[in-house]
Parts: sequence; C-alpha cells; structure tokens
Amino acid sequence: MIYLDNSATTKPYNEVIQSFTKVATTYYGNPSSLHQFGVQAENLLSRSREQVAELLHVSSNEIIFTSGGTEGNNLAIKGVAMQYKSRGQHIITTNIEHDSVHEPFKQLESLGFNVTYVPVDSSGFVSPAAIESAITDETILVSVMHVNNEIGTIQPIEEIGQMLTNYSKVLFHVDHVQGIGKVPLSLADHKIDLCTLSGHKIHGLKGTGILYKRNGVQLHPLLSGGSQEMQHRSGTENVPGIVAFAKTLRLTLEHAAQNQQKMRKIKAELMDKLSAHERITINTPNEHSAPHIINFTAQGIKGEVFVHALEEKGVFVSTTSACSSKRKKPSKTLLAIGKNYEEADQSIRLSLSGLNDYNEVTPIVNAIFTVIEDLKKVMR
Amino acid sequence: MIYLDNSATTKPYNEVIQSFTKVATTYYGNPSSLHQFGVQAENLLSRSREQVAELLHVSSNEIIFTSGGTEGNNLAIKGVAMQYKSRGQHIITTNIEHDSVHEPFKQLESLGFNVTYVPVDSSGFVSPAAIESAITDETILVSVMHVNNEIGTIQPIEEIGQMLTNYSKVLFHVDHVQGIGKVPLSLADHKIDLCTLSGHKIHGLKGTGILYKRNGVQLHPLLSGGSQEMQHRSGTENVPGIVAFAKTLRLTLEHAAQNQQKMRKIKAELMDKLSAHERITINTPNEHSAPHIINFTAQGIKGEVFVHALEEKGVFVSTTSACSSKRKKPSKTLLAIGKNYEEADQSIRLSLSGLNDYNEVTPIVNAIFTVIEDLKKVMR
Ligand SMILES: Cc1ncc(COP(=O)(O)O)c(C=O)c1O
Ligand SMILES: Cc1ncc(COP(=O)(O)O)c(C=O)c1O
Repeated sequence: MIYLDNSATTKPYNEVIQSFTKVATTYYGNPSSLHQFGVQAENLLSRSREQVAELLHVSSNEIIFTSGGTEGNNLAIKGVAMQYKSRGQHIITTNIEHDSVHEPFKQLESLGFNVTYVPVDSSGFVSPAAIESAITDETILVSVMHVNNEIGTIQPIEEIGQMLTNYSKVLFHVDHVQGIGKVPLSLADHKIDLCTLSGHKIHGLKGTGILYKRNGVQLHPLLSGGSQEMQHRSGTENVPGIVAFAKTLRLTLEHAAQNQQKMRKIKAELMDKLSAHERITINTPNEHSAPHIINFTAQGIKGEVFVHALEEKGVFVSTTSACSSKRKKPSKTLLAIGKNYEEADQSIRLSLSGLNDYNEVTPIVNAIFTVIEDLKKVMR
Repeated sequence: MIYLDNSATTKPYNEVIQSFTKVATTYYGNPSSLHQFGVQAENLLSRSREQVAELLHVSSNEIIFTSGGTEGNNLAIKGVAMQYKSRGQHIITTNIEHDSVHEPFKQLESLGFNVTYVPVDSSGFVSPAAIESAITDETILVSVMHVNNEIGTIQPIEEIGQMLTNYSKVLFHVDHVQGIGKVPLSLADHKIDLCTLSGHKIHGLKGTGILYKRNGVQLHPLLSGGSQEMQHRSGTENVPGIVAFAKTLRLTLEHAAQNQQKMRKIKAELMDKLSAHERITINTPNEHSAPHIINFTAQGIKGEVFVHALEEKGVFVSTTSACSSKRKKPSKTLLAIGKNYEEADQSIRLSLSGLNDYNEVTPIVNAIFTVIEDLKKVMR
C-alpha cells in the first residue's frame, strides 16, 4: 500500500509512541504538585519546552503547548483580537487559509471585527503589496499560512514579515502546520509574532502541537483556569503528549533536509509524468511550492470516485483537505485560484512524507493512469 | 509509597494506555479522509461516542470530545455566554468553583457580562434558594460544580436542576470532574444542560475529556475550523485519546460502586483517627461529602512543609488544589468557608482513588502523626 494522504495525517514514529507510553506509565504526576511525582513531571515539561525552543531557535518562554493546529490558530487569532481590540478592530487574512484560520476570522466578523480576505493569484500566491494596501490605522493582525494544505503554494512570509515591520501595531501570525519540516522558516528572521505547529502532520500524535508567541505579545486566553503555560493555556498539562511532541519535532527536523530532497525528487517526477496525461491538469505551481503536495484535476472524473478507485489499487489519496472532503465542500483554494466548481470537484491531492520512497513513483503513476482509463469508459 | 493526590491526577490504567497505543499505531487515519484509513478511524470515533453516551445514559450526539476538564468548562461557559448574550448577560456561579470555571467567569465579566458569585456556607454548600434569588430576567447560565476538589463537598445538583426547570431561559452547567465515578449523578434526572468530565482524574490520559451538551443547546465554538465534533469543537480528532477516554469511563463506572464503598471506608477511618489529634481540624464535612477527599488543617504547620515531610515517609499529598499549590495561592475554598489565611495555609488534602487500599490507613495516620510531632518541635 502507498499512503499519499500525509497532509491529512501521518503515521506516528514508533519512538514517539514509545516516549508517550513511557511518560504516561511512569511519570504520571501533575506538574503542579509539590511532591516528587509533580517535580518529575514538571522537569519533563520544562525540558520539552527547552528542546522545542532550541529546535526553533527561540526562547523557551515563547512556546505554548496546545492540543493541535486548530487550537493554536484559534488561540493566536482570537487571543490577539480580544487582547488588542481597543487598539483597532481590523484584521487581515487571505482567502485560501485553512478552516481553522478562516472560521475564527468569520466568528470575529460576527462579533463586530472588520475582516479583509486578501485574494490570491491564479497560482495561489498572495502579494505582500496587496496585504500592505489592506492595512489601515485600525489593523491589529495579519494571518497568512506558510504552505497551503491543498495545492502546496509557499507564501512569501519573509517579505510580508519585512513589510510589517513598518506597522508596529500589526501582529503577524503564520500557520506553519504544513510547512514545518517541509519548507524552512526562520521565526526571528521572518519577523513572525505567532506561529502554529501541529504534531500529527509530522509523524507525531494527534492532540499535540504548539503555538509560538514572541515575547512581549499578549493574548486573551481561550482556555483560562489554573494558569498553566504561563497563563496562556490553562488545563493540566498533557505531559506525555508534550514529551512526544518534542521528540516528534526533533526527529522531523533532524531528517528534514534529507527528506525534503527525497520528496522533491518524487514530486518532480510525479508532476512530470502526470502532466503528460491529456486529462490531467496540475494545480500545484511549479515554482515556490512545497515538496510534499501535488494537486491535479482529472477532467471528467469526480474526486470522490477517483479516491475510491485508487484505494482499490492500494493508493491512498484525498480529494481536497480532509475536513472539507467529508463535508463534500469543494476546495476553497481551487475556487480561489480561479478553477470552476466542476474542476474543483474533480481534483485530487497527493501528499508525501519522508516515509514515501522514490520507487513508489511508477506504481502511483500506473495506478492513476489505469484508473483514468477505467473510469473514463463509465463516466461519459 | 502511598499516593494520596488522586484529585490532582491519577495513574492511568494499563488497559487505557494499551488502547491508546494500539489505535495510535494501527488506526492513524484522519476520520475525515474518504479512504479506508479514514473510515476505520471514523468507526472508532463513533463507537467511542456511542459507548460514552451509553455509559452516561444520553444520546451520542450529545457528547463532545475535548482536551480535558479545563476545555470542557471553558467551552460550556464561554460557549453559552457568547451564543445567548442577546437573551441576557447575567451569569451565576459559586465562590468555590475550580479556576477553570472561575476564570472564564472573570473573563466574561471583563467583556461586560454581569456575574453573581453565590457564596457557600461554612461547610462549603451552596443553597438552591440562594441561587434562585440571584436569578434575574437577564440570567442565561448557572454553573455549579458537583464535588468540590479541595474539601469534597457535594453540591445539591438535583435540587438546583429541579429549581431551574422554572427558568426556561437559564442553562445549567455542572463541573463533574471530581464527581464522576465517586458520586452518582444522573444527567437527565438532574436536568443538566452541560456537564464536564476529564480523563486524567479517573485513571485515564491527560489531554482527554468530554463535554456533555444536551440536544437543543447551542454553543459558540471556542475552537472553530474543520467542523469536527458536530461543529462544536474543530480540530483533527485525537482518535487514540478518544478511544482511551471511552475505555477509561467504562472501567471507572464498572468499578464505581465497589470503589466507592472501599474509599468510603478508608475515608471514614481516616477522618475518625485524624480528628482525634489535638492539632488537627477536619475541613471536609461529615455529611454530603465525596468518598475520596479529606481536607484538614494541622495547626502551626505550613502545608508546603507538611507535604515534603510526608513525602519523606512515602506518602504523597497536596496542600490545596494542584494548580493553586504551585502558585502558592491559599485555598479559595477554605477562605470561602470562613477559614482565615493562616488556617488555609496550614491545610492538607488527601485524595483517594480505587487503587488505594484499606490497609494503607494505619501507615498514613502514623506518618501524619509522626510528622506533626517532628515538626511541632521546629515550628514554634
Ligand atoms: C494548514 C493547516 N492548518 C491547520 C490545520 C489544523 O491542524 P489540526 O488538525 O492539528 O487541528 C491543518 C490540518 O488540519 C492544516 O493543514
Ligand atoms: C473540579 C475540577 N474541575 C476542573 C478541573 C480541570 O480539569 P483538567 O485538569 O482536565 O483541565 C479540575 C482539575 O484540575 C477539577 O478538580
């Protein structure tokens, strides 16, 4: 079987599961307890925080452990909006963000905030100039994803961050969930104030992740209570999950360069072979796209039918993003780059990880071509 | 070693960790994916939901999986407040709630809501009449904990629920985190609209829990995005954690009656023996208190010093609630029942679980008495 749905979720590394189990079994104390079980748990917690900070070249008090990417995005966006609303109530994002960014913006809109959804071009890129021209005196937040989860475009985060240094009132949030381990990003150099990561997209555990929050940035907490995570995220800390996340990030970054090279090679070969087929249009841009995502439209074949036919051949792919596919919503990103409803409905996402192998290319391409041949007879 | 800090957190059941590991290793698909890995994960998710619903005698679409008790409380309270604020902006709670209830009320107060913190009596009980007299035309929510986490008082949830049936505009939320498995509670009979549970307090995993939400109640989601959990809690579902929570709840409720009997016996014996000591004042009421919590003040001995001295003897206890102990805040509950700052600062919480044993009573009492003897020489 060939698993090509790594942007939906990944198989956890064995070492990550082992760390989780070890901590859950042995170090089950509450980090807030004063006795040794508490102290042991607290030590694991702070060592994990330091490890994650070191890997990201930031300070350990800038790391907030969360339950995943959706929480990180909600906390960053709503946390900034509620905290700084007296400074202004205008917030900016793009029209191809993941739902866990898009929906918080919608909720804030319903609460009275002004939102600008900056459109992307026909390859899915947002222009820093377009963002800049949306900024007003009331703007307090810009949120832009690093790598798009549907077609893989890499946004010009560095230029946007640089441009935003001229607007000291505006905080910059980056959804780096699909970027981490795939496309390098420097939090400091790119002038990022808030940055979201999720464990399960990088061979870690579901229910784990972090929000990076630059020192000095304040947040109105989403989860308030016992003041854990420096008051930014209350709740008894999921120490086993946190240790597991630190291990996930270490393994991911240790192998990042090598895995990127491998994925780039697989992707290039797939793009090359697939684009030669008369029915296939590649939606992923050739340049400035992540090494792990290939999106294409197979003319005349509904994505859902395609997924199941490929599954029969042992190849596991997605239509659009996982959450939209289930709700049978067409891909927001494909519509935003100018595809029509039918094209969006006939698109397939292949998403790689470091666990894929170059020798999978031929069977993947064969499976896709065979399925198109088989299905074009029955479709009209 | 004798672990008496089960209200802070518990040792996970081996079976629970095994379920987690099995699912994380084998069924790692995203429930939203259309292929078989997704379908398998989705099946595990819905079976867990049904199992939890059955155990609580409610419908499966009334179960929202969360990352724990703090999230459940925040989601219930803020979710109701933001959803129904056009009906009224007055909300009611008590003055001895856990911080994960108290702080959301404080945040809502800062956003313009009116809050009544109904005081408790000298044993820690809130009276349904006092709550009723706080209700106005603007009231939309009453939140009362079932079992207090510091002294173990059981609130009259049934009477409050019954009284609230006369106020159709008012929703009723119960923090049942310390009650589940310890003191029976019927969600339907007690007219509860929202109810919070947490896995790690009942030998489950940190980062797991549920919010029960009665059909018909609407919530403004805290975590919005991919519309998981019937739109109430977005984010890729932590399927291993969810399966583990369902198993935790099943094991907890299967053994509940037997464990309660055991804990009641241990508690009665401890209360009896400890209260005979001239320096000890028991803060846990004799009647209507949970079987697992014993709180006492040891005159003249700082709680923190006591904890460490008992630890030397292999007995692990807490001062106040875990999160307050670390921040060196005196117990809110003890102050609320009329203890002075010094008494609150000299109090100790013993908290049991089904894993404790009756033959631990004598060593516990001996350790406590010895520590008092040793310390009273050095204190003055
Ligand atoms: C770009 C992007 N952001 C955020 C998320 C949400 O992360 P999580 O599934 O951990 O909630 C995802 C995946 O679902 C994603 O692809
Ligand atoms: C009564 C009560 N409610 C809520 C919580 C919060 O639960 P969690 O630790 O799962 O966030 C706790 C424990 O910390 C508690 O004792």
